[in-house]
Amino acid sequence: MKRVALLVQYDGSHYSGWQKQKNANTIQEILDKALLKITNHTVKTFAAGRTDAGVHASGQVIHFDIDCVIPGNSYSDVLNSLLPSTIRILESVEVKDSWHACYSASYRHYRYVINNSKFPNLFINNWSWHRYQKVLDEVLMLNASKKMEGEHDFFAFQKSGSNRQNSITKIKNIDVKRVEDLILVDIKATGFLYGMVRLIVGQLVLVGEKKISPEIFTDRWVNKKKNDVKESAPAKGLCFVNAVYEENVFKKIKNNDFFPIFLIEGFS
Amino acid sequence: MKRVALLVQYDGSHYSGWQKQKNANTIQEILDKALLKITNHTVKTFAAGRTDAGVHASGQVIHFDIDCVIPGNSYSDVLNSLLPSTIRILESVEVKDSWHACYSASYRHYRYVINNSKFPNLFINNWSWHRYQKVLDEVLMLNASKKMEGEHDFFAFQKSGSNRQNSITKIKNIDVKRVEDLILVDIKATGFLYGMVRLIVGQLVLVGEKKISPEIFTDRWVNKKKNDVKESAPAKGLCFVNAVYEENVFKKIKNNDFFPIFLIEGFS
Repeated sequence: MKRVALLVQYDGSHYSGWQKQKNANTIQEILDKALLKITNHTVKTFAAGRTDAGVHASGQVIHFDIDCVIPGNSYSDVLNSLLPSTIRILESVEVKDSWHACYSASYRHYRYVINNSKFPNLFINNWSWHRYQKVLDEVLMLNASKKMEGEHDFFAFQKSGSNRQNSITKIKNIDVKRVEDLILVDIKATGFLYGMVRLIVGQLVLVGEKKISPEIFTDRWVNKKKNDVKESAPAKGLCFVNAVYEENVFKKIKNNDFFPIFLIEGFS
Repeated sequence: MKRVALLVQYDGSHYSGWQKQKNANTIQEILDKALLKITNHTVKTFAAGRTDAGVHASGQVIHFDIDCVIPGNSYSDVLNSLLPSTIRILESVEVKDSWHACYSASYRHYRYVINNSKFPNLFINNWSWHRYQKVLDEVLMLNASKKMEGEHDFFAFQKSGSNRQNSITKIKNIDVKRVEDLILVDIKATGFLYGMVRLIVGQLVLVGEKKISPEIFTDRWVNKKKNDVKESAPAKGLCFVNAVYEENVFKKIKNNDFFPIFLIEGFS
């Protein structure tokens, strides 16, 4: 038996998320079936982070134990030949038995992309939320978001249906920045609650549109006013960028951030 | 009767190009059918540039004459409600009878995107050519390409099957630049020959990979060595960026370049 880690990209548009469920088309289901074809025995896969239906991943990390002669670094090619084009293995590598895709990760990084242009854009439509009620004030959004850094109870930003024991997690870093007409919300945290990023972005957009003040934003999560947190940003704008480990196992790749920044600018 | 101009985006992936043909799924066919639904009479559409099968457009320009009460600036909304999500009208406007999408254009701008990264990338896969035999030397490519500026006979860069009288056209500007692992080839010309950009890029890549020298590149087109020009870059990397007019009719849009630059860079 050897343990293999995969660096995985997927277009979540037409999947019911990462995790295997009955009667649902999930990324784990498809990957597990491909592994079964290779080895003829059931292989259990573990992900750095579960992604919800419609959410993408540019650098998801998976590991599994397998009894197979194929060397660790060949699983990328072998699996890519069996997987649909919406799931791509960027790299595979054999790791120590003690290394775990989920438990060994120090933190995870999600990015949310808002297209704040008057016009929709076909070329980024699948990877962004076209929201243009008004020009978003990204400085207000950044200021409101910064207070969330550190360890807090984010009960208000947890969708119901979670089986977590509590809603405490640590946001290592949060950043909101404008790149031309796009607003990028980058959140790095040790763990994410169910639906957390999309609820945060839903509220931050209200701040950026001056529909609620940064103080109301903060009051809602600090005082666990879950009933006031209604808006959830759509899944397609969200991407699991990567998981960061103390020991980076993907030697070939210095920086496993494969989610592009889209710049729409003038050239003529 | 009024003349209406449209600014159009399309994902060419699953279309047989712009121009209507028998038994083919073309953008013109779909647009004409939508216009027929609106007005109940056949409407003839004219494009700034014909795009081939699989080629995209971020700022294609179309015009047509229509006998209909709908005001010029409402066709964008009306058409978008009838068109598939792979074709989007960004703006519509009524223009003078003398204005013509094709004949009034001073020049057209095409962009070709090469993903010269070791790794494919799902998020730009539909809009770029993943080519990584080696790291491309974009300076060599630029130097080779610059000699093409001006009016020349580009017979060697014309695919057979064209019904043009000659293969002379004027390249106003050509640029090759690297944005991280991506190589962008931007060509602005008064007119483009059938298959021209893809043949140019096919040869420029050979220059960038040092398989042919810039001198051989130049010799091939200057001396019309069409038989030596074999490689054609795949359609999916090509986009009709826009058409430029002396009189810009799309008042709302300062700069109608809606094709994003994709930046894949480190954030962690």
